[in-house]
Amino acid sequence: MSFSPLIQQLITSLRCLPGVGPKSAQRMAFHLLERDPDGALALAEALQKSVSEIGHCKLCRTLSETEICDICSATDRDSSVLCILESPIDVLAVEQTGGFNGLYFVLSGHLSPIDGIGPEDLGIDKLLERVQSSDIKELILATNPTVEGEATAHYIAAQVKDLGVKVSRIAHGVPVGGELEFVDGGTLAHALAGRRSLL
Amino acid sequence: MSFSPLIQQLITSLRCLPGVGPKSAQRMAFHLLERDPDGALALAEALQKSVSEIGHCKLCRTLSETEICDICSATDRDSSVLCILESPIDVLAVEQTGGFNGLYFVLSGHLSPIDGIGPEDLGIDKLLERVQSSDIKELILATNPTVEGEATAHYIAAQVKDLGVKVSRIAHGVPVGGELEFVDGGTLAHALAGRRSLL
Repeated sequence: MSFSPLIQQLITSLRCLPGVGPKSAQRMAFHLLERDPDGALALAEALQKSVSEIGHCKLCRTLSETEICDICSATDRDSSVLCILESPIDVLAVEQTGGFNGLYFVLSGHLSPIDGIGPEDLGIDKLLERVQSSDIKELILATNPTVEGEATAHYIAAQVKDLGVKVSRIAHGVPVGGELEFVDGGTLAHALAGRRSLL
Repeated sequence: MSFSPLIQQLITSLRCLPGVGPKSAQRMAFHLLERDPDGALALAEALQKSVSEIGHCKLCRTLSETEICDICSATDRDSSVLCILESPIDVLAVEQTGGFNGLYFVLSGHLSPIDGIGPEDLGIDKLLERVQSSDIKELILATNPTVEGEATAHYIAAQVKDLGVKVSRIAHGVPVGGELEFVDGGTLAHALAGRRSLL
């Protein structure tokens, strides 16, 4: 037995959400139809409004419903430091630390030649333009500590080599609150190599 | 830092989905906006269409986009047996066993005096009407094996006592493929009490 076509269509559509498999989608569909039709309509409206109105900030390329996002248009931030991230959600992660007061530049992912994703797709050309045309003194490369993230960081570092800006990469090491026993070898090797003198 | 109002609204709306907490909702919102705006629009449309067009079958009260659902309008099913379930998703579970060829009646949940849910809210009056007005010979009470499900089953059994129909409750016992070691005491007690002779 299968569901009626409309229920089936709803279940299929719900599967576009990340982390939602066939069983969860079923559960969600029945929950919405049986218990929360108002929530379903509100969600439909929010989805349509968001897709039509949210675009990318012209300066930092993060998701924003205004042409220039709140962070880029803030006057109290240090515009000489630019933090390079892979996605808009990383902006939130860095902001939540409360330890960074510079500006951001959000790539659209990372270099991945195997998927045909090259520097133009990430907006690295726009990043270079921005570095050349403004008073940026330091680029902090905060792409993910994955193979692709590292490759992207190194590519950017090579591109800006002659532009006279300082380039740094976020530190690799043992996570705060972790136990050495459970840290993988690669991370521990980085933590040892990147040791800082205390005395 | 918080998100822009529209992104925040989308995240809040996504939380109406069962099992979606603040972090998953964030991840879903960013995924849809960055990677799958078409999926988001398709989902919005499916939600709106489903909520407006899917109602309850007039006979069995399951979710259906037609007045009488496919199962109730099928001519090759045994209309003398009626299986009582708590929700439309249970219909699918029973149908998938392939072992039942009767009709269904879907309650809207279970009796729950503490939440103010009484017999009328479940549609038990409609069930009684149906039993009286048709040629139903057996009611299979397949509400969930929870306290509320049991109470609901007993309530229905008491109501139909004088209507001359056979009333049965699905068997409680050890699940197929399980190991006795991991079966809880209540279930095991039911399994022993409900033992069937082999010889």
